[in-house]
Amino acid sequence: MVNFKLVVEYDGTGYAGFQRQSALPTIQGELEAALGKLLKEKISVAAAGRTDAGVHALGQVVSFRTARQVPPERLPGAANRLLPRQIVVRRAEMASDEFHARRMAKSRRYQYTILNRDEPSALLGRFAYQTGHRLDVPAMRKAGKALVGEHDFAAFQAAGSPTASTMRRVSALRAGRLGDIVIVVIEANSFLYQMARIMVSALLAVGRGEIAPGEVQRILESKDRGRVGPPAPPHGLCLVRVRY
Amino acid sequence: MVNFKLVVEYDGTGYAGFQRQSALPTIQGELEAALGKLLKEKISVAAAGRTDAGVHALGQVVSFRTARQVPPERLPGAANRLLPRQIVVRRAEMASDEFHARRMAKSRRYQYTILNRDEPSALLGRFAYQTGHRLDVPAMRKAGKALVGEHDFAAFQAAGSPTASTMRRVSALRAGRLGDIVIVVIEANSFLYQMARIMVSALLAVGRGEIAPGEVQRILESKDRGRVGPPAPPHGLCLVRVRY
Repeated sequence: MVNFKLVVEYDGTGYAGFQRQSALPTIQGELEAALGKLLKEKISVAAAGRTDAGVHALGQVVSFRTARQVPPERLPGAANRLLPRQIVVRRAEMASDEFHARRMAKSRRYQYTILNRDEPSALLGRFAYQTGHRLDVPAMRKAGKALVGEHDFAAFQAAGSPTASTMRRVSALRAGRLGDIVIVVIEANSFLYQMARIMVSALLAVGRGEIAPGEVQRILESKDRGRVGPPAPPHGLCLVRVRY
Repeated sequence: MVNFKLVVEYDGTGYAGFQRQSALPTIQGELEAALGKLLKEKISVAAAGRTDAGVHALGQVVSFRTARQVPPERLPGAANRLLPRQIVVRRAEMASDEFHARRMAKSRRYQYTILNRDEPSALLGRFAYQTGHRLDVPAMRKAGKALVGEHDFAAFQAAGSPTASTMRRVSALRAGRLGDIVIVVIEANSFLYQMARIMVSALLAVGRGEIAPGEVQRILESKDRGRVGPPAPPHGLCLVRVRY
């Protein structure tokens, strides 16, 4: 058996998220179908981030085992010929036998892209959340500081998600503006269900002046999911890098 | 009658080009349908650039006349509610009576985006031509110099296009690399049919080492369309700005 590690890019627009579902198109479903066809055996992939419906990836990492011999350098081209054009294998390498894309990931980095202008964009519309309300990015940056470090993120987890622990370590949270584009980058050891989008939702409330920057710290300390509005829309979110 | 000038952005992927065709979806068709519905009269738009099927725009300019009173600042939002999300009106303003988007344009700027890596991109795939052959961008830049200025561009016009004159003035041609992305920007007073894509095709041949940079000057002087291969694919091309 060979253990493979792949770096995968995808446009999540038409998919019901990463995780396989019987009746809906998913990234996992497409990858397992294409790899299964290529390797002529049933393939089961594990992913570093189980991205939600509509969320994109530039640097998702998946791993799988196969009994077939295939040169890693030939795998991306061969898999991409079988995959829909919304999913692309960027790189493939043989990994050590104990490698597992989810369990061994040390950190995930997500980027949230906001198009901050009155009119939507025909070109960026699939990959950026558009809002005409002029965002106060320095205030968002200030608010974000409270979220960096090891904390109980129960207030930033989708209701009803069973998890052993809601402690997570956020190693970086940056917000910046380049003209009409506002980018929020969040890196953490791992993310609770919808945590990135709920964090962005709180930062957007700060950026719009609906809550003061200091309020984000109080939300965190409250551990109360009811303190933040709905998660920011999925299509602005992209899993950009995973570290091992 | 009021004469309007609009700046329009579109994702040309699903369209048979700008110009109206009876049986196919076109940008002009969509714009005229939406504006006609909004203004409750038959609207006919003129555009600075009649982009080909699959070509995009960030800064297309169109003009049209209407007998209806509509505040320019309300027009983009109202039109965008009626347009498919692939087409967005960015700005609208009242223009002088003699304004005409095509006839009065002083220059058009096109950008051609090349993703220069082995694997395609799931996110950029709609807007960039992908080629794994490592391009020699300094050679492309050198070759492009021969095309700047006022010349007979007959060698860079699609065969069988009737035009009064094939003289055009190219005011700028730049090529640059940013990591995996190679961008070619071409600005001219106006473009012959498929001229931008045929110029890029010749520059790609230089970038791949198939022809020497100096050969582009000889192609120009030959006035022979047969000297360059097929136009570069449309989806890499984007009309970015029009000047008046």
